[in-house]
Amino acid sequence: MRMRGFRERKDVEDVWTLIDERIQHMNPESVQLLEAAGRVLARDAVSAVDVPAFTRSAMDGYAVRAEDTFGATPDDPRPLRVLGESMPARPAGVFVSPEGCVRIMTGAPLPDGADAVVPVESTVPGDETVQVTAAVPPKKHVGHVGEDVRKGSVVLKAGRRLRPQDVGLLSSLGFAQLFVVQRPRVATLITGNEILPPGSMPQGHSIVDANSPMLAALIERDGGLGQPPVPVKDERATLAAALADAAAQADVVLVSGSSSVGAEDHAPAILREKGDLPVHGVAMRPSSPAGLGFWDGIPVFLLPGNPVSCLCAYDFFAGRAIRRLGGRPKGWPHVALQLPLKRKIVSALGRTDYVRVRIEDAAIVPLAISGASILSSTTRAHGFVIVRKDSEGHAEGTAVTVHLY
Amino acid sequence: MRMRGFRERKDVEDVWTLIDERIQHMNPESVQLLEAAGRVLARDAVSAVDVPAFTRSAMDGYAVRAEDTFGATPDDPRPLRVLGESMPARPAGVFVSPEGCVRIMTGAPLPDGADAVVPVESTVPGDETVQVTAAVPPKKHVGHVGEDVRKGSVVLKAGRRLRPQDVGLLSSLGFAQLFVVQRPRVATLITGNEILPPGSMPQGHSIVDANSPMLAALIERDGGLGQPPVPVKDERATLAAALADAAAQADVVLVSGSSSVGAEDHAPAILREKGDLPVHGVAMRPSSPAGLGFWDGIPVFLLPGNPVSCLCAYDFFAGRAIRRLGGRPKGWPHVALQLPLKRKIVSALGRTDYVRVRIEDAAIVPLAISGASILSSTTRAHGFVIVRKDSEGHAEGTAVTVHLY
Repeated sequence: MRMRGFRERKDVEDVWTLIDERIQHMNPESVQLLEAAGRVLARDAVSAVDVPAFTRSAMDGYAVRAEDTFGATPDDPRPLRVLGESMPARPAGVFVSPEGCVRIMTGAPLPDGADAVVPVESTVPGDETVQVTAAVPPKKHVGHVGEDVRKGSVVLKAGRRLRPQDVGLLSSLGFAQLFVVQRPRVATLITGNEILPPGSMPQGHSIVDANSPMLAALIERDGGLGQPPVPVKDERATLAAALADAAAQADVVLVSGSSSVGAEDHAPAILREKGDLPVHGVAMRPSSPAGLGFWDGIPVFLLPGNPVSCLCAYDFFAGRAIRRLGGRPKGWPHVALQLPLKRKIVSALGRTDYVRVRIEDAAIVPLAISGASILSSTTRAHGFVIVRKDSEGHAEGTAVTVHLY
Repeated sequence: MRMRGFRERKDVEDVWTLIDERIQHMNPESVQLLEAAGRVLARDAVSAVDVPAFTRSAMDGYAVRAEDTFGATPDDPRPLRVLGESMPARPAGVFVSPEGCVRIMTGAPLPDGADAVVPVESTVPGDETVQVTAAVPPKKHVGHVGEDVRKGSVVLKAGRRLRPQDVGLLSSLGFAQLFVVQRPRVATLITGNEILPPGSMPQGHSIVDANSPMLAALIERDGGLGQPPVPVKDERATLAAALADAAAQADVVLVSGSSSVGAEDHAPAILREKGDLPVHGVAMRPSSPAGLGFWDGIPVFLLPGNPVSCLCAYDFFAGRAIRRLGGRPKGWPHVALQLPLKRKIVSALGRTDYVRVRIEDAAIVPLAISGASILSSTTRAHGFVIVRKDSEGHAEGTAVTVHLY
C-alpha cells in the first residue's frame, strides 16, 4: 500500500474558472408545453399573435357608450336599453347605438359602438333596460388588441427558467412545444468495498451508502437527470471500466469515494493516466480530496466518500457544472440571507471553509464539529457560511451571508 | 341571463382561518428511501444504530498510540514500526503496541491499542517503518461510537421536509422505507366554452387555456399530485357532474372560470345548492370573484378564469390548502426579501392587494397595470407585494416585503 500527500491543492476559485471555461450549456431539445415548467428556454419565445386578439371586456357587466353614463349616480341613474348579449366566443352581433347597451361577460368581445364596460355591481337590472348607477370613462374595463402581448414581440428570452405563469402565457399564445436546454444525464459511481447498498442495515464494519440517495436528490434539484447509481468495487480495472461505461452514457460523471491518496483510491490515477485530471486536491475544508477530471471530454467529479465532504464537493463543483450544462445560473441555488454571527468563525488563510450553521434568534451560530464525517451536522444545520481563502474568519457580530439548505 | 353582484366579500385572513381550520394534513404512506427527498416525514425517525458503529479513522494515515508521536517535528521525526493495515471493512487484526502503528484508511476500524491517527501528510514512509513528522493528541482524527448519531435518538422529527442530506443520513442508518405524508391529489376543471385546449392556436374569439399548464406547475411546486385537467362546457348539469367526479377522485378540486356572478358562472350556484360555499367573493384585487366551497368534505377552490386572477387566487388560497394537506408549511413558498419602494403603492382600505413588481437597483418598482387580464405582467414581474386590508398603501422609500416568483 503506497500513500502520499496531495501534490498541489487548487483554490476553489480556480476550479470554478475551469468549470466555467470547459463546461457550456447543452443543446436544445423540443418538449411539450405541459412538460416545460422549470426548464430553461433555449431560444427566444416570439409571439405569433396579439393578446387580446380582439377588443374584449375585462368585467361582467354592460358594454356601453361611455358618454351615456356620464353623471350617473345611485340617486340619478341612467337608463339604457339592453340590445343583446355578448358571451365569450359568442359576440352580440348588434351595434350599440346611443342609450343602448349589451350585457357582456368577462372576456367576451366588445360590440361595435360600445367603448366601455359598466360592471354589474354599478347597475340595477330592469326588464328591457338597465339602470347605470356609476359613470365610466371611455376604455374603462376594456382590453385592447395587443395590449397584453404584441404579435412579433419577444415574450420570454432564451435562458429563462420557465415559471408556472410563463407556461401559462406561452400556452395562451398558441405554443404547443418549446425549445429548451437538454437536461444533463448524470452517472454516479459509488466506490468502496465496505459500502452496503441503500436499504441495507449497517453490519459489522460495513456501512450503508449515504451518498447515492443524497446525490440523487441534489442532481434532481439542479435539473440533472440522475441515472441509477452503480456500486463499484475498489479494483483499478473494475473502476476504469465503470468510468468508461459511465462517460459513454452520461454528460457528467460523479465518483463517490476513491478520490483521495489512499491505496484503494484508484480514480485519480485512472484519470491521470487515461484521461485528464486538472484538479486533484482543493484548498478547502471539508472536501480537500475533491477532484475534477475529464474522460473523453466528459467531466468527472471526484467526491470524497465521506458524506459531508461529498455534499460539500457536490455543492461547490459538481452542482455548478450540472446547472451550467442545463442552462441554469451557475451560482449557489440556495436562498441566501445576511445575518450577524452569534459566535466567531475561525478559518485559515489560503483555504476556503464550508461552515455548517444554525440560525437562532436571527443570528448565525456555527456548529462545533469535530470531524468531517458528521453527516448529522448537515441535518442539524439550517445552512452554511463560506469563508473565502483571503479571510482568517469573521468576528462575532459581523454580518455574513448564510446559504439556506 | 341574470347577473347580480357579490352578496358579501370575505377578508383574505378569514379565508385563511377557514382553510387552516378545515384542512389538515393527510394520512401517512410508506415510500422507498430513494423516493423520499422533498417529502414530509409523517413520524419521527429514530435511529436503530450508533454511527459510527465502531471506532474509525477520519483520515488516511497511520493509527498510532498518540504518546509515541509527542514532540515529533519534521526535524525530529518519530520512527514507528508498521504492523499491518486497516482498510474499510477489513480490520488489521493486530494490536498496536508501543512504537508500533498500522496503516489506515479513512473509515477503516481503528485497531486495538491505537488511540489516534496521524494523517499521511505528516509522515515520511520507509520500508517497514514510517517517520512521523507531527505530533497528534489522543483521539485526533478518530471517530467514536455514536458520536455522529446515538442509537435510539430522534434524528429527524415528524413534519420535516426531507433534504438531500436527510435522505443520506437516513440511508446510512439503515432506513429502507419511510412514513411520509401523502401527496394530495388535485383535480382541475377548466370551464369556458371559449377556451381551446393547450397546444391550440388562438382563433377568432376563442382563446387558449393558459390556466391548466400554469396550475399544473403550481400544484407540482406545492407538492400536490396534479391530475390531468378536464375541460368542462358552461352547462350547469355538465359542471355538476364533473365536480362530483372530481371530488370522488381527488383531495382538492380547482375550478378555473365559472366563479363569478355572470350568467354562465354555474359553479357557485352548484356548490351553494349541493355542497357548501362558505366563501364567494373576497375583498382583494385582483381575484375578488374567488371562492371556496366543499363537496362531500373535499375543498373546491373557485379560481377566476382570468389567468392573473387565477394565479393570485391559487397562490392565496388553493396553494395554502395543498401545502397543508401535504404537511408542508402553509405560508408563502416564495423567497421573500425586504427592499425599499422606488414608487408608492396605493391601495384601498378594507381590501388586500396583490401587486406585481420588478426589482431594479435593489428597489421595488410596482408594475403599472391597467387590467387584471395582463398575464404578461406576471412574467415581466420578479415577484409580488401584498398590501394588507388595513393599509392604504405604502409611500416611496418604505421597506416592504417582496415575494419572489
